Amino acid sequence: MFSKTPPPPYIAVIFSSQITDQDTDGYILTADKMMELAAQQPGYLGVEAARDDDGFGITVSYWDDIAAIKAWKMVGEHQAAQAAGRSKWYKGYITRISEVTKDYSHGEIS
Amino acid sequence: MFSKTPPPPYIAVIFSSQITDQDTDGYILTADKMMELAAQQPGYLGVEAARDDDGFGITVSYWDDIAAIKAWKMVGEHQAAQAAGRSKWYKGYITRISEVTKDYSHGEIS
Repeated sequence: MFSKTPPPPYIAVIFSSQITDQDTDGYILTADKMMELAAQQPGYLGVEAARDDDGFGITVSYWDDIAAIKAWKMVGEHQAAQAAGRSKWYKGYITRISEVTKDYSHGEIS
Repeated sequence: MFSKTPPPPYIAVIFSSQITDQDTDGYILTADKMMELAAQQPGYLGVEAARDDDGFGITVSYWDDIAAIKAWKMVGEHQAAQAAGRSKWYKGYITRISEVTKDYSHGEIS
């Protein structure tokens, strides 16, 4: 689903990951919970996610500023999820912090 | 698949899209061709892509600078693909241009 972000500038956190086949049910539950929890954080603007059948996925979350990301990274439940992610759910991941300077759209994005 | 990007700063083009069910074979062919063609452009650093079963996908391409993106956008074959995308393959899309300022990784990213 698309995120209706405000006009730039804003921050995008691009999280690319390859999941393992360990505890997939637990992963899905926790991922859903983290999406809900993130949406309650100050400065949260939205999230978009897609994953291939082979387990490679991209999640992009959008934020007001760097301070909002730092605060979210430190939330207790999120820290526990990150640790579990590193130990069993993710074979590997790359996180990229970026500043969106321009955006445009076409067609139906609701 | 992960992109091995150089240390920041570099540019990320975040392309979120919902495909239609029109001419899916043509879409896949053209998308593959555009991935190959992009890889030959000056300033290209890599691409990562994932798509859900329901047709929502995220493609992130990485570039040296804004000039490289502008040049790629103007390539003839790419322009034809963009026009076909707007007319039949994409129900909707959002393109976001961003500057990556920080990145970090964990585990296997090859």
